[in-house]
Amino acid sequence: MSEDCLFCKIIAGDIPSDKVYEDDHVIAFKDINPQAPVHTLVVPRLHISTVNDLEDENAALIGHMILAGKQIAADNDLAEPGYRLIMNCNEQGGQTVYHIHLHIMGGRQLRGLG
Amino acid sequence: MSEDCLFCKIIAGDIPSDKVYEDDHVIAFKDINPQAPVHTLVVPRLHISTVNDLEDENAALIGHMILAGKQIAADNDLAEPGYRLIMNCNEQGGQTVYHIHLHIMGGRQLRGLG
Repeated sequence: MSEDCLFCKIIAGDIPSDKVYEDDHVIAFKDINPQAPVHTLVVPRLHISTVNDLEDENAALIGHMILAGKQIAADNDLAEPGYRLIMNCNEQGGQTVYHIHLHIMGGRQLRGLG
Repeated sequence: MSEDCLFCKIIAGDIPSDKVYEDDHVIAFKDINPQAPVHTLVVPRLHISTVNDLEDENAALIGHMILAGKQIAADNDLAEPGYRLIMNCNEQGGQTVYHIHLHIMGGRQLRGLG
């Protein structure tokens, strides 16, 4: 846990969130500033600041994040119409919280990639 | 291999691509219609149509795709400025080729998530 990290505080329960899923490795909650009808974040319990900090040993964890995203999309009836999974890294990527997270976006036609 | 799949034909070498990386599990090549100065796709050699078709046994492969994306971003001097990793699923997600792929986008300030 990183003491100044917003998502670590959410994981610890010190800051409330609208949680939709959790297991031993990740939690998922609704984005506080949604950009689509469904906009949920999957966050690993392990504090990793950016995608740049991922190591080979994290491969299974990252895969698990994507699989959780797939399941959350299905739970929101997005599987057939479709959805988008996004990870932003650093400023030009649009990262705003420095604890890696996967965006699940759907519920409307998504446009360009940014 | 799926006979009618564009990306399977690229993997087989039957259709040319501007390849930037390959290993036993994935290949990566420049997007033919780039939406940013760097716009590269990481594609697993295994034909999987959509994110919906991923199974738990694919977790390590998906993690490996993300790690390849991280490396390609670094190779393009995007690590510090930043970049975005995207997987689109089905029509509303903006998927156009039905063989899963990871977009790596960078080289300019990326905007909204679509």
